[in-house]
Amino acid sequence: MTEAKNAFYAQSGGVTSVINASACGVIETARKNPDKIANVYAGRNGIIGALMEDLIDTNQETEADIAALKFTPSGAFGSCRYKLKAFEENMVQYERLIEIFKAHNIGYFFYNGGGDSADTCYKISKLSEKKDFPIQTIHIPKTVDNDLPITDVCPGFGSVAKYIAISTREASYDVSSMAKTSTKVFVIEVMGRHAGWIAAAAGLAADKNNDIPIVILFPEIEFNQEKFIAKVDVNVKKYEYCSIVVSEGARWPDGKFLAEQGTHDAFGHAQLGGAAPVVANIVKEALGYKYHWAVADYLQRSARHIASKTDVEQAYALGKAAVDMVIAGENAVMPTVVRKSDSPYVWEIGRAKLEDVANVEKKMPKEFISDDGFGITEACRRYLLPLIEGEDYPPYKNGMPQYVTLKNKSVAKIVNTKFSL
Amino acid sequence: MTEAKNAFYAQSGGVTSVINASACGVIETARKNPDKIANVYAGRNGIIGALMEDLIDTNQETEADIAALKFTPSGAFGSCRYKLKAFEENMVQYERLIEIFKAHNIGYFFYNGGGDSADTCYKISKLSEKKDFPIQTIHIPKTVDNDLPITDVCPGFGSVAKYIAISTREASYDVSSMAKTSTKVFVIEVMGRHAGWIAAAAGLAADKNNDIPIVILFPEIEFNQEKFIAKVDVNVKKYEYCSIVVSEGARWPDGKFLAEQGTHDAFGHAQLGGAAPVVANIVKEALGYKYHWAVADYLQRSARHIASKTDVEQAYALGKAAVDMVIAGENAVMPTVVRKSDSPYVWEIGRAKLEDVANVEKKMPKEFISDDGFGITEACRRYLLPLIEGEDYPPYKNGMPQYVTLKNKSVAKIVNTKFSL
Repeated sequence: MTEAKNAFYAQSGGVTSVINASACGVIETARKNPDKIANVYAGRNGIIGALMEDLIDTNQETEADIAALKFTPSGAFGSCRYKLKAFEENMVQYERLIEIFKAHNIGYFFYNGGGDSADTCYKISKLSEKKDFPIQTIHIPKTVDNDLPITDVCPGFGSVAKYIAISTREASYDVSSMAKTSTKVFVIEVMGRHAGWIAAAAGLAADKNNDIPIVILFPEIEFNQEKFIAKVDVNVKKYEYCSIVVSEGARWPDGKFLAEQGTHDAFGHAQLGGAAPVVANIVKEALGYKYHWAVADYLQRSARHIASKTDVEQAYALGKAAVDMVIAGENAVMPTVVRKSDSPYVWEIGRAKLEDVANVEKKMPKEFISDDGFGITEACRRYLLPLIEGEDYPPYKNGMPQYVTLKNKSVAKIVNTKFSL
Repeated sequence: MTEAKNAFYAQSGGVTSVINASACGVIETARKNPDKIANVYAGRNGIIGALMEDLIDTNQETEADIAALKFTPSGAFGSCRYKLKAFEENMVQYERLIEIFKAHNIGYFFYNGGGDSADTCYKISKLSEKKDFPIQTIHIPKTVDNDLPITDVCPGFGSVAKYIAISTREASYDVSSMAKTSTKVFVIEVMGRHAGWIAAAAGLAADKNNDIPIVILFPEIEFNQEKFIAKVDVNVKKYEYCSIVVSEGARWPDGKFLAEQGTHDAFGHAQLGGAAPVVANIVKEALGYKYHWAVADYLQRSARHIASKTDVEQAYALGKAAVDMVIAGENAVMPTVVRKSDSPYVWEIGRAKLEDVANVEKKMPKEFISDDGFGITEACRRYLLPLIEGEDYPPYKNGMPQYVTLKNKSVAKIVNTKFSL
């Protein structure tokens, strides 16, 4: 048996309410295999931590605190939006990584993120071959956008989907009861710049026991103002109200985001963002209905208080699987969720080669969007429902969820040379 | 013993996640006293239902459906924003109410709302004396704004407070983990046009285990742009990020709402609302930090999925108390929550005379806002904490909360004459 090496774990890109559950799966499983993995070093603020030799010693954390990661939203070690360039463009970054990994006896590289980090993972695995530096790289999927290929779902998505579906149902009940004399149109803006997965989840707010009129504006469907106004009006005339869900990625026919309406403040400065107020104004101008609008923004992806149990379990299982995989000698792979059946939802852990994951974006299938472009189909519902199944409530004290803040103690520097990002 | 009379119950103004729990308390308690209360007729869309003789027969609802009101947000019978005028201005409305109440043998009037409905209740009780039409009127308090006097708290507020405190904590964890390379300033806009109670609740996101930098903009404190920017900058320099909570009622020194920034869209139309984007822009202009913003809007007051257990219990208890009070022969009163101690929170039901409630607004005490005007004091924390205590989760099926939609069958009209609102 070879000497135990250290593992490096980093969180990448926008965080979610369950990415720490994957971290928990990695660290708890590594701790059960001390003969193989001596310590898990986490990158402080993601891959930047590796480049700056700013490593966190997770062995300093108590078992209870590591267990608490399973119900703590956000990135406990810090994440970053920082993409490594191609080899040719910035070889010095890759060489720096190898220098740090060698110095700290790191034999395993776990990168927990979306498409970009899968690509980074893949590059490091190629480099490992080229430089004859043995490191096993595993990508652990995470993204609320749900846009990674092969895996049935990306951890983080199920909980956002649940939050948006519930919030849309709750707000619709509210509007419904006020519509006689007050608000008739409610607009909620949701995340998903390139794909309408999150917007689609709002469709779950309506079902056979909840006859709620919902109009969804997907990024996949070019915004047709005339058809949209007609649809809203039909709903208001039938139901006395209408709920509208607009993806931040919804676009005008010319390709511009709805959010880029060209609004300016009193000083003439461009006013940034908010597809929701733009859509609300369009309805007001055309139909005159009183409206309200909400922008969920970070609330949706950090809402650990109403996380999907399925999502939490998958996030943990994928972190655990990553460690199991390196122990089994695997390299340049990503553990995936494989769906065996819809109802009951049966899933198991599979694997995808990083070369098949990197730079491939999973789009919403056309058959998930209804013919009129404003709703979801039964096929979409069958896909989504299992992902929001179950509630995994965090513990509470004094009425507030008890999330953990780790000690995040630094590993002593060994290389200790300056490096500029 | 007199013959049993019917009761009229109506919901008024903006709904909450627990106003139906009060309805549940009224109806369940009335059903236990059939010798005194024959039936509870609910106004369809509030008081409008009485004026239009559009009454809902709650006896048609099953026990299970009435019980489900306890965990269903919104106004199950419809609410309205419709204020009765003064006697002198529109006596015809009051006479119409008496006509309808007499025709349907209504001896008890339960009005579930905020300040305006307390005033209406009071007027009807005065009218009852004047016209020698015996009706017992009870006002059941409800308002997320928490601005009714005498009662320790208004049902609806505790759950919004809990939602905003939790959401602010969760989003702050998110921003904290991204701040190194991404968003440094997060702005969330909350309700409360005249009082900062809800904004204050966001202060609970931080405590001794959660060192979160939060800057609150209260409607009670004139917005000082210079001090605000300095405060945010100090926080970002110390913590790498800052969370900002802005009340929709926050104002410029000239009295204008921050939300009325004078923004216009591409067509020159005034762009309505959103204090959050205005505040975010102010920070961006002055400090250049990357920001995100959220507007919770109706999500906050309909979020039954994370209602405060204390709030639900009080909402139910006040509904029940209203019925107990009419049975005890009381009139022109409002059941209240009386706080006996902070910790543990001990409360009991008290009563206030409607003449002491109508047209009195409870403001946030000055000693609840910190000296710099951007935070809450320990006294405020002691007041707020008990109100968010406990979680009262609704039942779930297929990952979604199972809220009830009542049958809401109409009572046959007796007067059956036309009436214009």
